[in-house]
Amino acid sequence: MTKIPIGVLGATGMVGQNYIALLNNHPWFEVRYVAASFRSTGKKYAQAVSGRWQLAESYAPHIGEIMVEDACDTGRAVAAQKRGDCAFVFSALEMGKDETRTLEEAYAAAGIPVISNASAHRWTADVPVLIGEVNPHHIDIIPAQQKARGWNRGFIAVKPNCSIQSYMTPLHALAQAGFAARRLIVTTMQAVSGAGYPGVPSLDMIDNIVPYIGGEEEKTEKEPLKIFGSIANGVIQNAALPEISACCNRVPVTDGHTACVSLEFGEKKPSLDEIKKIWTSFKGLPQELNLPMAPKQPIICREEDNRPQPRKDRDLDKAMAVVVGRLRPCNVFDIRFTALSHNTVRGAAGGGILNAELLKHKGYLG
Amino acid sequence: MTKIPIGVLGATGMVGQNYIALLNNHPWFEVRYVAASFRSTGKKYAQAVSGRWQLAESYAPHIGEIMVEDACDTGRAVAAQKRGDCAFVFSALEMGKDETRTLEEAYAAAGIPVISNASAHRWTADVPVLIGEVNPHHIDIIPAQQKARGWNRGFIAVKPNCSIQSYMTPLHALAQAGFAARRLIVTTMQAVSGAGYPGVPSLDMIDNIVPYIGGEEEKTEKEPLKIFGSIANGVIQNAALPEISACCNRVPVTDGHTACVSLEFGEKKPSLDEIKKIWTSFKGLPQELNLPMAPKQPIICREEDNRPQPRKDRDLDKAMAVVVGRLRPCNVFDIRFTALSHNTVRGAAGGGILNAELLKHKGYLG
Amino acid sequence: MTKIPIGVLGATGMVGQNYIALLNNHPWFEVRYVAASFRSTGKKYAQAVSGRWQLAESYAPHIGEIMVEDACDTGRAVAAQKRGDCAFVFSALEMGKDETRTLEEAYAAAGIPVISNASAHRWTADVPVLIGEVNPHHIDIIPAQQKARGWNRGFIAVKPNCSIQSYMTPLHALAQAGFAARRLIVTTMQAVSGAGYPGVPSLDMIDNIVPYIGGEEEKTEKEPLKIFGSIANGVIQNAALPEISACCNRVPVTDGHTACVSLEFGEKKPSLDEIKKIWTSFKGLPQELNLPMAPKQPIICREEDNRPQPRKDRDLDKAMAVVVGRLRPCNVFDIRFTALSHNTVRGAAGGGILNAELLKHKGYLG
Amino acid sequence: MTKIPIGVLGATGMVGQNYIALLNNHPWFEVRYVAASFRSTGKKYAQAVSGRWQLAESYAPHIGEIMVEDACDTGRAVAAQKRGDCAFVFSALEMGKDETRTLEEAYAAAGIPVISNASAHRWTADVPVLIGEVNPHHIDIIPAQQKARGWNRGFIAVKPNCSIQSYMTPLHALAQAGFAARRLIVTTMQAVSGAGYPGVPSLDMIDNIVPYIGGEEEKTEKEPLKIFGSIANGVIQNAALPEISACCNRVPVTDGHTACVSLEFGEKKPSLDEIKKIWTSFKGLPQELNLPMAPKQPIICREEDNRPQPRKDRDLDKAMAVVVGRLRPCNVFDIRFTALSHNTVRGAAGGGILNAELLKHKGYLG
Repeated sequence: MTKIPIGVLGATGMVGQNYIALLNNHPWFEVRYVAASFRSTGKKYAQAVSGRWQLAESYAPHIGEIMVEDACDTGRAVAAQKRGDCAFVFSALEMGKDETRTLEEAYAAAGIPVISNASAHRWTADVPVLIGEVNPHHIDIIPAQQKARGWNRGFIAVKPNCSIQSYMTPLHALAQAGFAARRLIVTTMQAVSGAGYPGVPSLDMIDNIVPYIGGEEEKTEKEPLKIFGSIANGVIQNAALPEISACCNRVPVTDGHTACVSLEFGEKKPSLDEIKKIWTSFKGLPQELNLPMAPKQPIICREEDNRPQPRKDRDLDKAMAVVVGRLRPCNVFDIRFTALSHNTVRGAAGGGILNAELLKHKGYLG
Repeated sequence: MTKIPIGVLGATGMVGQNYIALLNNHPWFEVRYVAASFRSTGKKYAQAVSGRWQLAESYAPHIGEIMVEDACDTGRAVAAQKRGDCAFVFSALEMGKDETRTLEEAYAAAGIPVISNASAHRWTADVPVLIGEVNPHHIDIIPAQQKARGWNRGFIAVKPNCSIQSYMTPLHALAQAGFAARRLIVTTMQAVSGAGYPGVPSLDMIDNIVPYIGGEEEKTEKEPLKIFGSIANGVIQNAALPEISACCNRVPVTDGHTACVSLEFGEKKPSLDEIKKIWTSFKGLPQELNLPMAPKQPIICREEDNRPQPRKDRDLDKAMAVVVGRLRPCNVFDIRFTALSHNTVRGAAGGGILNAELLKHKGYLG
Repeated sequence: MTKIPIGVLGATGMVGQNYIALLNNHPWFEVRYVAASFRSTGKKYAQAVSGRWQLAESYAPHIGEIMVEDACDTGRAVAAQKRGDCAFVFSALEMGKDETRTLEEAYAAAGIPVISNASAHRWTADVPVLIGEVNPHHIDIIPAQQKARGWNRGFIAVKPNCSIQSYMTPLHALAQAGFAARRLIVTTMQAVSGAGYPGVPSLDMIDNIVPYIGGEEEKTEKEPLKIFGSIANGVIQNAALPEISACCNRVPVTDGHTACVSLEFGEKKPSLDEIKKIWTSFKGLPQELNLPMAPKQPIICREEDNRPQPRKDRDLDKAMAVVVGRLRPCNVFDIRFTALSHNTVRGAAGGGILNAELLKHKGYLG
Repeated sequence: MTKIPIGVLGATGMVGQNYIALLNNHPWFEVRYVAASFRSTGKKYAQAVSGRWQLAESYAPHIGEIMVEDACDTGRAVAAQKRGDCAFVFSALEMGKDETRTLEEAYAAAGIPVISNASAHRWTADVPVLIGEVNPHHIDIIPAQQKARGWNRGFIAVKPNCSIQSYMTPLHALAQAGFAARRLIVTTMQAVSGAGYPGVPSLDMIDNIVPYIGGEEEKTEKEPLKIFGSIANGVIQNAALPEISACCNRVPVTDGHTACVSLEFGEKKPSLDEIKKIWTSFKGLPQELNLPMAPKQPIICREEDNRPQPRKDRDLDKAMAVVVGRLRPCNVFDIRFTALSHNTVRGAAGGGILNAELLKHKGYLG
């Protein structure tokens, strides 16, 4: 199979680098177009990231040779699309929310599908916020999106905030089995890579934690309601439950967000053994389709008291699995557990690639 | 005033070192007797802690010259008491729970009051678990304790686990103002010094957190009920509320336990402004008595979004204050806040010294 | 004694904050003027540093009320001097080297002595680079500096880079005793506070070290030669020895620079015992004068194998002492040792204040 | 090809775990025998390491089922050899030096070759200390070792200390090109995994470094002389040069030892360009033979100022490459550079496996 040529917007930033690295050897997609801010424009990619490359795994040599384009100039991407170098783009833009929203719309309007990591469009009612294992059916809103906006081939699909990835699939698996959550109190301990590079100063992270991440608690509380929502009248209507209260902390960990969850079910309450069985046996659409980026087992349950731990568990199954442990009764609600996911892979670039694989499967990427 | 000569049991361990350092220049008490395990017995204190001293502040020179006694030999302490070197002891024993319980009782039976940091006697019904600002009236159980056990001058008083220190005083201040908590969900991020030395391996704390501390959640959930309890029939009867659910994590911080609290009040619910006022103006008995180890302001409220932080806030007011921040409404319960206290000072040796000051004031230490 | 009113330039930055905090309760000096970049101009100091204050110790309340002036506007400082609020300034400017050089000269020309932490004037031949215990006699170049430049009351005196503070006093003590070093190979492990705030990204410092600090090795190799130099013809002429080779690393430590030194003496080679005796008994002019900021014992020798350690030793003697350990023969040169000093106190604001105390004593500050 | 069945002594410890993990899917060797201390004897391997497994990569399922034998009972290994389950052993014993020495000799005497990670036999004159790329010819001493001790099939071969791995191959490559080093001053910054688990307490590694590792400097200074030595009269005779002075520090890094090296050549001194060319083009015997564990390029030169960094470079080429950077002239000696190697892979289990591959190739493992 000929690979689909794709582009990465914001390719020199932290998430952009993750896209580039994760797409090395992807069986379906091949990076042929990279765009970034004007400071990098006109340099070869290798030159643009020299001294700024953050990952242990490097980029493929041919990508180092690609000339970086100006991400604000959609015309360059259209030209690339015409010459067969950019069927769609992953957006890892690191601009202000308004600029990002406008720019992503400009790409879509120009006929280039945008699969985005940015938060700009998460509250746009006709843009799906996708987790492959949870709400792949939200993809079905895309025709309505295209029609309402007069877009032809382009569209926008986004992924949610990295802070919720660790517990959304476990919640969904339980809900699907008839045990929907009614209330959640969540405390997160989030890795510094979530803030990009340079991101969090080391003076804040040596012998310290920071009990606050701007905007994160709001996202953690609200995005699940859209993901659990349903399509009606061309928009996604938010679910009413679960009520979520989130407290988000920054801790001295490079990668891997941990969430400590206390959960109250609705009327039907499963036993701990039932929960473990539900989680361990859960498969979503990405698993059924055996998509390249899909983890084999999306929810891994650890039995040891002292797991999951970020450094030891974050990389399981290509860093795409969610690792859950410490399942036990809650003194106040019904159950408690601790969940972990890799924020820059499952929670960012890896999740975006999985979304693209789903969209390709459903015929939206040509 | 002539200082009261005191002893420290377990003087070479981490908490013992904290007692020694904090009692440098104490206006009322003077360390004249130190005891530890048989490995240190017969060495000068300076020699026994050489290469093992953990604190930035050193011990007073005269303490370095004291010969370490065997902590298991109560006879040595009795002899010291006779010659005027040991009116009472601080217990920082690091043995098994049963040995500690028996040994502390042996000291008390031998006429030596024991002010303990150990967890062995926290669930003994006639032993008070004291936080100076919260339940100083529990001291009144000591006569019953002495009578029931046939002890004359000796008794046992303990302090609670370090994990609850940060939020107990804020809860108490609210309850006292008429706003008792009904339910709490707490996630802690606890410092490694809580596990002593060598304690937590660095392989567990570099780029990592450990989502479990053995026994800690049970202590965090139950000890508050005894502290909020009342004396009846010669024992302390536990309070029924608040219900507490705790999730305790170990994080890469040297000192300072942080707690993220979601709280539901009973029927009376204060406004955020009322809460701030209650906390900021709260004074306990240690403040009224102006005790040497008492913080001037036991609850410090921070207004900045990103505080309290362990490294920046743990040392406030001799490391004896509790620092509270991020007070805000909770989506699920009534309010949320983040609280910090220094676990080896407020939560261990400093809290023990404050208890001794109260006991001295009430006439129990001669 | 009435305190001398002083100003701090760059008062909101990391070093500026250290000046402010260290000058709380200083017996001679009182901060009455603060200046920073235009972003802070016109705000009260408390407001300007809100959310950015890095230190555990806070600023004095009256300083929080001072209005921040524009550091580029020397006229404001002159006005403050006239009304008796700014006899001289500490410069903690964080601008480019050229702007700093020009601006410090403007202050001096306007009659305001500048005691600087910046590197801009370290290679200006008539500007002394002072370490109180090592080269206080270099102060004597100030009249020549003033004359050559036509300055009346103003002058510039600077302190050296923080990376050399830990071993300069030990080298000087040995040289003074007749054992001058001929060659040194030094590897430093430097704290992140040396880079200011935000400074070093935490992604570079979690589970990592960075083997490079821009410009640091050059400073570490050359500044000692000026400090050991002599005054001739109105300039400081550099010493020829010791030859120094430096390798500077950034490590995950908040405060405290460590240097591992291998040293070759000239012809006279002391025994290890002689060296310890020289170091332990060394006193410089600040000690003789008993200056407020002077450590009682400028060089502290540790006998334990595993010291000095940054967290445990950096704060000794008001964080102004140099702590030396691991003195042993070198397989290649003559001796080896490891030295530590607190980079933001001894190596920055504390060293600057000590310089001001010396200058005051010698009559240069009115 | 049928795989050679092998055993691991000390299989539950940190280095033992690394052997187990690295031998997953090895094309030549298959773990069929595991032995450890009596505490683990009689348990399945999975049970013995439960809660103690340190690595992100797990062990192969069939290894979890193997019953752990008592490492002190050589008879069990002989029985395993007879039934075809243990052709030779990797020794990752963590006992005292004397016990290790005696026990390794007992295995060899019983006909079981021992490829050891332990330091016990590094100074036994007829035991080779092997680095695959540097002194594979030292394998030739084995017949003399066997003859002198009356051993038939068994023998002992060891690998050097992890602290020297990063610079020995670069030194050897230069020496082979005619540029032998005469003197070296080395400062190392070593990872905590080098001390095993639990190993270094986290209280020593948060906001701190420890300027000392017991016995490490002696090993770092002496072992290179044996590795550079020559065989004569049935023993390895140490080289006279280079003189090495080492200062070894423990830093808060999980894996990856960094060495800052200042080097003086003998009479022939290469240019920096020559050195880079020598290093980049160097291939050793493992590369010529294309051994499974051999890195493709044993010395990787980084051009960026701020590399090598442990977290970003330690895993290059299966964590078996040495990464060198910051090559520059030295003010005192001839050149300086910074070198990094993964201490538990290249410096321990991976190096041991590479040695076994060489020994297999030379016909010593049947």
